[in-house]
Amino acid sequence: MVTVYGMKASGNCYKVQLLLEQLQRPYRWVDIDSAHGETRTPQFLAKNANGKVPLLELDDGRLLSESNAILHFLAEGTPYLPADAWLRAQVLQWMFFEQYSHEPYIAVARFICGWLPTDHARRTELPRLLERGAQALTVMEKHLSGREFFAGDSYTIADIALFAYTHCAADGGFDLAAYPEVCTWLARVQAQPRFVRMQV
Amino acid sequence: MVTVYGMKASGNCYKVQLLLEQLQRPYRWVDIDSAHGETRTPQFLAKNANGKVPLLELDDGRLLSESNAILHFLAEGTPYLPADAWLRAQVLQWMFFEQYSHEPYIAVARFICGWLPTDHARRTELPRLLERGAQALTVMEKHLSGREFFAGDSYTIADIALFAYTHCAADGGFDLAAYPEVCTWLARVQAQPRFVRMQV
Repeated sequence: MVTVYGMKASGNCYKVQLLLEQLQRPYRWVDIDSAHGETRTPQFLAKNANGKVPLLELDDGRLLSESNAILHFLAEGTPYLPADAWLRAQVLQWMFFEQYSHEPYIAVARFICGWLPTDHARRTELPRLLERGAQALTVMEKHLSGREFFAGDSYTIADIALFAYTHCAADGGFDLAAYPEVCTWLARVQAQPRFVRMQV
Repeated sequence: MVTVYGMKASGNCYKVQLLLEQLQRPYRWVDIDSAHGETRTPQFLAKNANGKVPLLELDDGRLLSESNAILHFLAEGTPYLPADAWLRAQVLQWMFFEQYSHEPYIAVARFICGWLPTDHARRTELPRLLERGAQALTVMEKHLSGREFFAGDSYTIADIALFAYTHCAADGGFDLAAYPEVCTWLARVQAQPRFVRMQV
């Protein structure tokens, strides 16, 4: 059985939880509160020198970090990761988009608004984060026009990766009403079999 | 024959060039100067709504963005991307690390130092970029201790992805002498068959 080290309210960790639930694959969950330094202890850094969750541990002790690499590994051979080479390329394209052009703005705005004091210096970052996050949502809105899912015609780990922080973007100050295709897609993801909500 | 839209001095674009040269796969290269707005024209945005290079175009017009998704697609079935599931997971782990914890600091510091005027307001970002970039280099240094390459025992696209901006980190103000394992690995990459230098 695999073990996931993570924080349930982190979108990156929730991605892994959601996929494991949908795969109906048993797993052990170890809570690690990254917002309170638990990814920076010597014990945790010995497992992941980059000091981040989620972290996947196999029952033989092998360790894998990076949420989207974990999704890709767990989804291999399942309907959540297509076998077709071009579809696989598109899945990865959207997962790299998520980590580079989406998460650093939408997740970070949510972190600043939800986890830091209202007078924290990092609030000055918010205007730039809202601008860049809106660019990412606009790219998603455009892509979803006439499409049901991000890669091909079915629900994949690309959707899981992008759902994680998009569905709670309002927590960081984004108004999703401006992105109707994105809202319809969010509902489509929530209607998938064995969908579970993020615990906040 | 595939077409690559890119800027030769961009590490993200150079990754694709280096792999194609090492694969000895013919390609057409279309110069797009992202530093001077050429990724923001209506023509280019019609090809990639996210307005970034590199962009891969197949001969039937299909398009793929995100440098590391392009590497993964092109390397499939070649020695640059192992067939073993666990090695593939590690390759992706390091490629996501590169895009999230390395490139946003090391590449951005290089961009600010090399492309913006010396009195540009963004120079105030440099101390934070140098601190975070140093953290990434420290993670790499630790991982490379006792290892020749990032994933498994051979040169893969994980090495290509990380080489691109690490080898020119000094351009952004990093002192690589503090990372001897990284320096030895850089030389090991440069010694690979059909290696080509980045054109700057």
